[in-house]
Amino acid sequence: MERANVPHTTIQRLPGYLRCLLEAEDQRMPVVSSVQLAEMCGTNAAQVRKDLSYLGELGTRGIGYDVEALISYISSVLGITERRKAALIGYGRFGGALLGYSGFPERGFEIVAVIDADPEKVGTEVDAASGPVAVSDVSELEDVLRRTGAEIAILATPARVTQELADRIVASGVKAILNLAPVRLTVPDDIAVRQVCLSTDLQVLSFHLAHNPL
Amino acid sequence: MERANVPHTTIQRLPGYLRCLLEAEDQRMPVVSSVQLAEMCGTNAAQVRKDLSYLGELGTRGIGYDVEALISYISSVLGITERRKAALIGYGRFGGALLGYSGFPERGFEIVAVIDADPEKVGTEVDAASGPVAVSDVSELEDVLRRTGAEIAILATPARVTQELADRIVASGVKAILNLAPVRLTVPDDIAVRQVCLSTDLQVLSFHLAHNPL
Repeated sequence: MERANVPHTTIQRLPGYLRCLLEAEDQRMPVVSSVQLAEMCGTNAAQVRKDLSYLGELGTRGIGYDVEALISYISSVLGITERRKAALIGYGRFGGALLGYSGFPERGFEIVAVIDADPEKVGTEVDAASGPVAVSDVSELEDVLRRTGAEIAILATPARVTQELADRIVASGVKAILNLAPVRLTVPDDIAVRQVCLSTDLQVLSFHLAHNPL
Repeated sequence: MERANVPHTTIQRLPGYLRCLLEAEDQRMPVVSSVQLAEMCGTNAAQVRKDLSYLGELGTRGIGYDVEALISYISSVLGITERRKAALIGYGRFGGALLGYSGFPERGFEIVAVIDADPEKVGTEVDAASGPVAVSDVSELEDVLRRTGAEIAILATPARVTQELADRIVASGVKAILNLAPVRLTVPDDIAVRQVCLSTDLQVLSFHLAHNPL
């Protein structure tokens, strides 16, 4: 599979297919058809066939996809067959909640570092869903990222300091950022950023409410 | 403006434009050009002009957009000129963190109800960023939604109970759901759903790491 050939929209749907396939595995289904997989994922069979065709010759016409084989193939395409190390920057209310999010270890992500600026938090040990971690001071950000081998930085920081921290993270060699601060980051082209902005989501819902009067 | 004419991708960018315009207002800029707005939002000027053209005849050629006028226009299109009431279903670690999220009241969203199944939490008063709220029992979900006039339900519940709760929420007349549980919801066509799934975001980042070796 050539990464350049896989459309971004397909990549974004792969985690959903994986989740549905894991459910199929739980239900002891050895094979799923594109129709079944589409139903589980809330899409249509043509979309499933098209998305999976980008990954190679998978599935057998008239039979479907081998569930175990497709799980391990998609996991490998997503690069989650090995554990991925992530650092949490910002241990406030939001960061604290993220730390306990069991979806992270279940999908192979391990929080290896927690970084904050509050002297009362620095040095304490906190419980991540993937295990206990000591909180490091933000002045040691670069050292901590290098020492722990974190590949992903999760930013749950106040808006005003976020771009500056992102610059330091990028300078440390981290190539992927999940940004939960309500700020649009400017980063070099080779850095992957996912922006989570709950108030944007609420505003899009509000648009629908405003234009679909009850 | 005809809602049907505004592409979904444009709607999704409006909250970002609004955020940049509020920054421009903070910096006391009376007018912004499409080039300036594009720079602030990390997009290009042609995209800005095209997106805003869906909303009507805005801006003056060679001068730009009046910042105050565009803020109030986009706010009105997004339906956030009046406060919108939201109910939080699920007061666990995640729900608790959301409750304190200042981005909600800043953008005009007020948490009017908190609902949980835990008898130890029901009846206690909790502090939302928009003010104190009493936790109600999930058995009273329908009553609470109707009594408080909640228009948006924020689901921060365990995966296995989420679809059932969504069904009850929809039956109560709520038309918009922000879903933070890692489950794809099945709802009628006239219900707007936004799905937030942090482990999907991490898997997309992982894909980029896997296919861009350091």
